[in-house]
Amino acid sequence: MRIGVLTSGGDCPGLNAVIRSVVHRAVADHGDEVIGFHDGWKGLLECDYRALDLDAVNGILARGGTILGSSRVRPEHLRGGVEQARGHVADLGLDAIIPIGGEGTLKAARLLSDAGLPIVGVPKTIDNDISSTDVTFGFDTAVMVATEALDRLKTTAESHQRVMIVEVMGRHTGWIALHAGMAAGAHAIVVPERPFDIGELTELVGKRFAAGKRFAIVVVSEGAKPREGSMEFDTGGTDVYGHERFAGVARQLSIELEQRLGKEARPVILGHVQRGGTPTAYDRVLATRFGWHAVEAAHQGRFGMMTALRGTDIVLVPLAEAVDSLKTVPVDRYLEAECVL
Amino acid sequence: MRIGVLTSGGDCPGLNAVIRSVVHRAVADHGDEVIGFHDGWKGLLECDYRALDLDAVNGILARGGTILGSSRVRPEHLRGGVEQARGHVADLGLDAIIPIGGEGTLKAARLLSDAGLPIVGVPKTIDNDISSTDVTFGFDTAVMVATEALDRLKTTAESHQRVMIVEVMGRHTGWIALHAGMAAGAHAIVVPERPFDIGELTELVGKRFAAGKRFAIVVVSEGAKPREGSMEFDTGGTDVYGHERFAGVARQLSIELEQRLGKEARPVILGHVQRGGTPTAYDRVLATRFGWHAVEAAHQGRFGMMTALRGTDIVLVPLAEAVDSLKTVPVDRYLEAECVL
Amino acid sequence: MRIGVLTSGGDCPGLNAVIRSVVHRAVADHGDEVIGFHDGWKGLLECDYRALDLDAVNGILARGGTILGSSRVRPEHLRGGVEQARGHVADLGLDAIIPIGGEGTLKAARLLSDAGLPIVGVPKTIDNDISSTDVTFGFDTAVMVATEALDRLKTTAESHQRVMIVEVMGRHTGWIALHAGMAAGAHAIVVPERPFDIGELTELVGKRFAAGKRFAIVVVSEGAKPREGSMEFDTGGTDVYGHERFAGVARQLSIELEQRLGKEARPVILGHVQRGGTPTAYDRVLATRFGWHAVEAAHQGRFGMMTALRGTDIVLVPLAEAVDSLKTVPVDRYLEAECVL
Amino acid sequence: MRIGVLTSGGDCPGLNAVIRSVVHRAVADHGDEVIGFHDGWKGLLECDYRALDLDAVNGILARGGTILGSSRVRPEHLRGGVEQARGHVADLGLDAIIPIGGEGTLKAARLLSDAGLPIVGVPKTIDNDISSTDVTFGFDTAVMVATEALDRLKTTAESHQRVMIVEVMGRHTGWIALHAGMAAGAHAIVVPERPFDIGELTELVGKRFAAGKRFAIVVVSEGAKPREGSMEFDTGGTDVYGHERFAGVARQLSIELEQRLGKEARPVILGHVQRGGTPTAYDRVLATRFGWHAVEAAHQGRFGMMTALRGTDIVLVPLAEAVDSLKTVPVDRYLEAECVL
Repeated sequence: MRIGVLTSGGDCPGLNAVIRSVVHRAVADHGDEVIGFHDGWKGLLECDYRALDLDAVNGILARGGTILGSSRVRPEHLRGGVEQARGHVADLGLDAIIPIGGEGTLKAARLLSDAGLPIVGVPKTIDNDISSTDVTFGFDTAVMVATEALDRLKTTAESHQRVMIVEVMGRHTGWIALHAGMAAGAHAIVVPERPFDIGELTELVGKRFAAGKRFAIVVVSEGAKPREGSMEFDTGGTDVYGHERFAGVARQLSIELEQRLGKEARPVILGHVQRGGTPTAYDRVLATRFGWHAVEAAHQGRFGMMTALRGTDIVLVPLAEAVDSLKTVPVDRYLEAECVL
Repeated sequence: MRIGVLTSGGDCPGLNAVIRSVVHRAVADHGDEVIGFHDGWKGLLECDYRALDLDAVNGILARGGTILGSSRVRPEHLRGGVEQARGHVADLGLDAIIPIGGEGTLKAARLLSDAGLPIVGVPKTIDNDISSTDVTFGFDTAVMVATEALDRLKTTAESHQRVMIVEVMGRHTGWIALHAGMAAGAHAIVVPERPFDIGELTELVGKRFAAGKRFAIVVVSEGAKPREGSMEFDTGGTDVYGHERFAGVARQLSIELEQRLGKEARPVILGHVQRGGTPTAYDRVLATRFGWHAVEAAHQGRFGMMTALRGTDIVLVPLAEAVDSLKTVPVDRYLEAECVL
Repeated sequence: MRIGVLTSGGDCPGLNAVIRSVVHRAVADHGDEVIGFHDGWKGLLECDYRALDLDAVNGILARGGTILGSSRVRPEHLRGGVEQARGHVADLGLDAIIPIGGEGTLKAARLLSDAGLPIVGVPKTIDNDISSTDVTFGFDTAVMVATEALDRLKTTAESHQRVMIVEVMGRHTGWIALHAGMAAGAHAIVVPERPFDIGELTELVGKRFAAGKRFAIVVVSEGAKPREGSMEFDTGGTDVYGHERFAGVARQLSIELEQRLGKEARPVILGHVQRGGTPTAYDRVLATRFGWHAVEAAHQGRFGMMTALRGTDIVLVPLAEAVDSLKTVPVDRYLEAECVL
Repeated sequence: MRIGVLTSGGDCPGLNAVIRSVVHRAVADHGDEVIGFHDGWKGLLECDYRALDLDAVNGILARGGTILGSSRVRPEHLRGGVEQARGHVADLGLDAIIPIGGEGTLKAARLLSDAGLPIVGVPKTIDNDISSTDVTFGFDTAVMVATEALDRLKTTAESHQRVMIVEVMGRHTGWIALHAGMAAGAHAIVVPERPFDIGELTELVGKRFAAGKRFAIVVVSEGAKPREGSMEFDTGGTDVYGHERFAGVARQLSIELEQRLGKEARPVILGHVQRGGTPTAYDRVLATRFGWHAVEAAHQGRFGMMTALRGTDIVLVPLAEAVDSLKTVPVDRYLEAECVL
């Protein structure tokens, strides 16, 4: 068998572990040939690739980033390139393509699959917002990095008698904020799923100081927004490419809370450290299993599918289902925890 | 409501996170009173306890160990103490007892539950061998610690051109060996579920050197044993308390492999570092959710049950089922990975 | 002997290690009594303190922050409080005061020492800018945290083909930027000691891309500023308390570099994570030695002095010298490394 | 200029950082050519090497091990090879050789230097026992790894109410034990510099239990030995190559202490994890500076010298002095700390 693999979209710890696992399973166990396309779909469209043998993936299991490079391709660009892709797949004699990527990548995968190309997807997002899998690799690493930062910030907040507003990743969903906030014992967690009321948040933090505590930690997803009319808010708008810009919610929240509480408040924006570097053991195992099962799916001819974790099992789910809807934090269920606003 | 909580058995990262979560949910949300028994079942039998208010659990979320202490009690001792326990529960006016512990603790919990005491168990084992839950807290931390050690040992093994035999925890099951081995890219993984053949193992490692590699990493569970007749083996026997002693499998394997391969081989026994210290974010979240749900179960009168993870949900399972059988590594499923012997 | 200890100024990993060491050496070895003033000089001025016995410092060696609390006191406020302080010292029967703090604290210490109070100072600053000691505790931890973040950002920068501008602490000196940048292999390091020329910096980074590299990491101290006329720059000004505000140099640099290079550039501001949390082993050892030697100095009546590291020895230097001048990065010496602008 | 570099002896975090720094300074700044000999002196004797350009050292700064490989060569073997070495140096047109290694390597370096070869040594030992430099790279990483393990073991020891005997590296000197023990707050530290009296050690630990504490941590160097007649002791002897074997001091101590104290005692042998893997920021900076200065020394023709750290400066010291005597722990100075026996 001849398999093409590519990585697309933002960086995510575990990408190299999937690539390595695909190569190990395909080459060492099945005697397949594997090639890797450079810079995501771009490599497929421009037929830019290299052979991946066992030596090529030596020592990459624990390395962050992707040895294949990545890029974002506009959907319309890919739509116009289906015939090109089909031609390159035929020319290269590929029996299967394994794209590793997030929501956009999987939508593109579905497009090509519907057009008849032999695709097995592997989901990737540090945000953990893909509904048909229990977890995606990269998420555990992001939560770990955010939790370690929160652990450090706690002693500083306490020493300085401050409110710390810590902004973590999560444009549309609050999973990283929820898990890192729970893991570090944050005093309030603000997620995009439910616009926050600045008055309620102030009250929640204020109660803590009223009870004699000297500091508070608020974790907020980058995509969180206030309830309409709750406070003035610069929504960020869109950049020149039409992508949503971040609103800088932590910065705006800290100014507002400082005034309302009469306590020093400081924003900390964790940023890209959450998506780079060596993956946790959990993410390496999950990524390795995804790669292994993607190769098996290819050998069984189960195309148009995507690997997913269900409980302790790796299963295959149709790409069509995979990208149907975002997996959001069930705010109501967590509401009683009294810290998600 | 008045709730008693205790921790029993070996150390496990996340114990304090459960205690804190029980207190937070019970005291802050339900207005309950919580007491903590000292040193496991011993505290219940001897009525040795202290009150646990919110201040008592301040700052313990990320701390290893258990603020309540722990100890091992012989089953027969507990069996003889059922009436005593019942008396103390009545005297203290307890509506629920939440024991946090491993297989032995849960068996004891079942005994007391069958005797009519209001028990909600919380499973705990770094070995991850309890069959009715997808994962137990402490396991992720143990795997992380073992993986970090393996990452470090790899460069050393390579520089010294050696075989490193790394012994990880796991008396009866190989989950830690399997996950840490996969996460670190070990070249062979030896688990208790399948007695190893020293000849096969030698061949597997030997092939690697024959292919020009300069080192190899073998991960072995402390409870692994050779196939009968495969090699001479000191099985360790039992100590003065009748507990199984470790055989020192890494040490014996390294001597044997060194002779058979003609390559320097060194044992490394990771030992207790795997079960102490701050839990990973994953374990803190799981432990926190277990504590929260144990309190809910108590309030719903669902006694004789144990918290468990199924997929992304926390569910309750009967204590009777929980301790029926060990969850073992399905060696056949992993056999094709070619590294589990 | 009766000793008072206090911590003043910003948070710094190792403060608790000094406190513990002072108490261990004084109480356990010399049979002294130790009290801790709350919230820095404020505690001395308001006679707000508590007794510190061995139990009080149990388990704090590895903990970030300070169990005594800290605050900043305006110099004029302290100057006006000298007689008050003298009175409290007499009332409490103190034979020595050990203030642990940065430049401002040591200046205050000198003031009180000149007024006749028995002071032994312990220097503290994550910035490492105190000239009379080779190193201060807290610096190694700050560098470690920044280096770990840089390690993670490198893979992300590479995957996204970006310039990352990483802002680290250092208002007046570039030690953290220099060491973290060297440790992580940054491609340019920008420090406050030498105003940068945006043209030179653009050229340096541009050469890298011209040579076929796909990313670059620039480390910049928060206090770095462009050479006059080099680029438009919002200098930050001062806040309502008259303190210097940060200019947001990484943000401004990334906008400027993006335009000049035509490459995506992103700022990452590490912020307070650099000054909180558990100290490195290095900082714990240094802090412990400082505490030990401060007690010895007190017993030898060597007041008006400060502990300092010289090579591998802890020595005492006059407070007068200690705060004479900042220790700055000798930019010329590092210039040849071609990455400090 | 044409420079040869080699790494010799046991693994040590920072070796790759030196190699990278030598190449960067020599190739990028001076326009030199650099070659790397494989497997230490062996590579020089057998003229086994490869060219090292900038690409060859890309990404190795943070990587453990050595890309050049290492091996141990017997002194007499090297002595017999001086003429061979001289020939290869001439044939290859080398103007300087930079060997990176420990005591044995530096002795060999001196031998070759005395024979007229142009040598600049770089000292390397995780044990920190080279007298003419304040610190060697690798030591900080070893101490950090040991300290993290001790941090984890503390909670386990406390939960199990045990004595933990933790064996760290250090054949002839106790620096790792001393620093890791201080950093983690060990209750006793046992070093090779002073044979321990088992009675005194038992008393020291016993006092702790008598004072109501529930656990104790003893850190012991692998090379520590009891005072003659103090207890029965298997000294380990020598292996087939005549090298000293380890006595397994932690194992023997734990058996003895368990019997004398009537408390459970357990040995933990940290082993090779202390010398592998990614270096700390401190070690990366030190290694980088050593490499940089070794190249400068070569360009200045200062042969027969070795780089060394003195305070904050890198200086050159004669190889002759460098290996004169071991730097040992000044036990008397630390005796008052009451934990070094």
